[in-house]
Amino acid sequence: MKKLVEQITSREDDFAAWYTDVVKKAGLIDYSSAKGFVVLRPYAYAIWENIQSIADKMFKDTGHENVYMPLIIPESLLQKEKDHVVGFAPEVAWITHGGTEELSERFCIRPTSETLFCEHYSHVVQSWRDLPKLYNQWCSVVRWEKTTRPFLRSREFLWQEGHTIHATSQEAQDEALRMLDIYTNLAEEYLAMPVVRGRKTEGEKFAGAVSTYTMECMMHDGKALQSGTTHFFGDGFSKAFDIQFTDKENKLSYPFQTSWGFSTRLIGGIIMTHGDDSGLVLPPAVAPIQVIVIPIAQHKPGVLEKCREVCEKLKNAGIRARIDDSDYSPGWKFAEYEMKGVPVRLELGPRDIEAEQCVLAKRTGGKATAPINGVTDAAADVLKDVQAELLASARQNLKNRSSQAFCLDEMVQIAKTKGGFITTMWCGGGGCENTVKEATDGVKSRCLPFDQSPIADVCAVCGERADRVLVWGYQY
Amino acid sequence: MKKLVEQITSREDDFAAWYTDVVKKAGLIDYSSAKGFVVLRPYAYAIWENIQSIADKMFKDTGHENVYMPLIIPESLLQKEKDHVVGFAPEVAWITHGGTEELSERFCIRPTSETLFCEHYSHVVQSWRDLPKLYNQWCSVVRWEKTTRPFLRSREFLWQEGHTIHATSQEAQDEALRMLDIYTNLAEEYLAMPVVRGRKTEGEKFAGAVSTYTMECMMHDGKALQSGTTHFFGDGFSKAFDIQFTDKENKLSYPFQTSWGFSTRLIGGIIMTHGDDSGLVLPPAVAPIQVIVIPIAQHKPGVLEKCREVCEKLKNAGIRARIDDSDYSPGWKFAEYEMKGVPVRLELGPRDIEAEQCVLAKRTGGKATAPINGVTDAAADVLKDVQAELLASARQNLKNRSSQAFCLDEMVQIAKTKGGFITTMWCGGGGCENTVKEATDGVKSRCLPFDQSPIADVCAVCGERADRVLVWGYQY
Repeated sequence: MKKLVEQITSREDDFAAWYTDVVKKAGLIDYSSAKGFVVLRPYAYAIWENIQSIADKMFKDTGHENVYMPLIIPESLLQKEKDHVVGFAPEVAWITHGGTEELSERFCIRPTSETLFCEHYSHVVQSWRDLPKLYNQWCSVVRWEKTTRPFLRSREFLWQEGHTIHATSQEAQDEALRMLDIYTNLAEEYLAMPVVRGRKTEGEKFAGAVSTYTMECMMHDGKALQSGTTHFFGDGFSKAFDIQFTDKENKLSYPFQTSWGFSTRLIGGIIMTHGDDSGLVLPPAVAPIQVIVIPIAQHKPGVLEKCREVCEKLKNAGIRARIDDSDYSPGWKFAEYEMKGVPVRLELGPRDIEAEQCVLAKRTGGKATAPINGVTDAAADVLKDVQAELLASARQNLKNRSSQAFCLDEMVQIAKTKGGFITTMWCGGGGCENTVKEATDGVKSRCLPFDQSPIADVCAVCGERADRVLVWGYQY
Repeated sequence: MKKLVEQITSREDDFAAWYTDVVKKAGLIDYSSAKGFVVLRPYAYAIWENIQSIADKMFKDTGHENVYMPLIIPESLLQKEKDHVVGFAPEVAWITHGGTEELSERFCIRPTSETLFCEHYSHVVQSWRDLPKLYNQWCSVVRWEKTTRPFLRSREFLWQEGHTIHATSQEAQDEALRMLDIYTNLAEEYLAMPVVRGRKTEGEKFAGAVSTYTMECMMHDGKALQSGTTHFFGDGFSKAFDIQFTDKENKLSYPFQTSWGFSTRLIGGIIMTHGDDSGLVLPPAVAPIQVIVIPIAQHKPGVLEKCREVCEKLKNAGIRARIDDSDYSPGWKFAEYEMKGVPVRLELGPRDIEAEQCVLAKRTGGKATAPINGVTDAAADVLKDVQAELLASARQNLKNRSSQAFCLDEMVQIAKTKGGFITTMWCGGGGCENTVKEATDGVKSRCLPFDQSPIADVCAVCGERADRVLVWGYQY
């Protein structure tokens, strides 16, 4: 098959350069003059809108309400919860002046909004009748990272942050796990990104959390991407912010909290899970254009009309279809939409019209003809196929990239060759996490997976007795 | 009729205190510890989401695409367009530190994003093929205002900012007027806020614009609210940012730009247009709850079941209905949803069930029974009535608050008594605008209305020959 797409670095030659080529050439981002702050161009923002609309519905269907908290946090408020401030203060942006005036107290731009939600809870939670509050907000946050990469690690990113507060510890713990389930559903069913799920170790959990749950995805190059986390806070934040409520027995109690978030990082995950040497490959569920209609010999009478008619038909059936009737050549268009990862290309020329059919070509490979008469059903089926193929091939990569190891040497050996997820037994010591990180130049624990069936009885790192299963890997 | 709502200040006694009571007691906002930064609570945010979804569809239907630009602007970038920096620099928030490090260049938080769009255009606009770009973004902006009030003037607010760039001046001018039409449609048909439209004077236009168009609404207290503006920039920004494109004749040309925005200020406008001494009154088109179902004698067998059934019926018909089956009394609930401005209350008790009917009470006054059988049609009709009544009564207020004046004394007299919009002839001099402002303690020109039919031939202020019609008023 002829290579139609303009040259991008090959994935195998240099994965990082391939990634940068794709985000630029598929028209996803533009760099601004502020390092780590990128422009999300229409194509990237449309992917984000699709993710938002799927997730927002899931959140609302489970009783969550959207709110909007201030962009900035007074320094004194950020400092109220001790672990939290230690975790975030080193990477926040500080506002010191309003107009020409120096401010009497500094404000940071929110790196996350726990402290703001806590301040608000302290105003609106008085009685058991006020609980639970199930809140979410869509916004951007700022973290002053040293090294930055579009979508994966940037100084500003878009995300959603859920924040909930409950009367009982059990209810809050359930919420943290329920939201992880919702994230998993989003990742697997819509983004075609299979996940490994579990709890973070003490060393890797969120600043201020009792437990952090995570879903970890496997990228094409064997590195893990932490793709969504949910946190159970216990009553620590409530105590730090003096949030109390009168329970049904008329006693004052501290409520229990959670928070949970995913971000535009997911777009980076989509690129690195599904992309190939011809560019982006988008799962139909979130693709801004699901079917691109490309007229063949469009100067011939009747071709454009028929193409437009077919495109309208698809749109009316709820398919995100678009026609490219520009005066570029069909070859140029094939390459363009291949680069942009459009799941299905519909070709339609004079001979097709005569035969009352069109060609449906999948971005994942393969093409077939479909009767123009039944084109919407055919297109819907092909889109379903592409969605399923992407998930299957990502599952296969996850499987190929999953190993077990029983000693440190073996861990190093696997990390340095095939990478991926490495499952071992673990004694529970943070020292062993450090040992692995040093020996492998960066492998960290990903999570204690929910399936804790032991594969041995000693820690792969120190050889001490161990009853915990831990998954490790290089990370983005 | 019994006053059911907990005490709020009366509108006539103290409009400002009434406003503050309503925003707090209807659960729209909470104050944060950062002055001028408020929490948009679920009820306010849901109104904003409804406005967003209406406007976003209008923007997309007219070919606009959403993007996301960085939150921050390097100081050197802000300074590139001279008028623009003079207008905005005095009221921006400055970031000077990232983590513990002092930055080599300061960044401001975007007060508006023209400079960021221009930087991006300079990267992506090279040929006439790249034009037009029709962009919009939903985001928050920061302006360090001295005096602040929720929704009306705050240091942070949510808005949309449209930014477009075109090959010709005519196309850009048309765009600025087309978007004003879309804003007008939003205001009148959905928010039930009638507008006066026109062009801003030189003294009142946007910093950097050639022309600013505005829609001005009339609040219940006789003050105007600038509710949405669109700007035609000519090629000034393109020249300042060195944006050029190769036109069809292969010549280098400067493109022409527009921008346009409305904000959460519209929520303030809704409150001050429609609210009354019992609290908020929401236009059905943007009300988060359109119909509140309130069970009467809900402990009686069958009542809750029937209420839930009716509520589901309404929801399935696309009506935003909710049931309040809490153990508060019906009286408490009546007051609560009256305060919250829910357009229609549906009452349903044992006697209604027997008669196979329910009561539909309008927030604007009046109630009627409807057969349970045909409840969705009846509710939809009543919602349409409320929407129409709100627009009609706002139109009446606008009419009552509109005057003509022919000399300064008359202007002062009208301003100090009934306020509202004052139409006069005007010589075109900024000096006369200053004279009026001083003589009236704040009346400013609102706009040169599109209808320029003269009402006299001399300026009402200085008595010189005048052929311009100008509308004046106190403003929020």
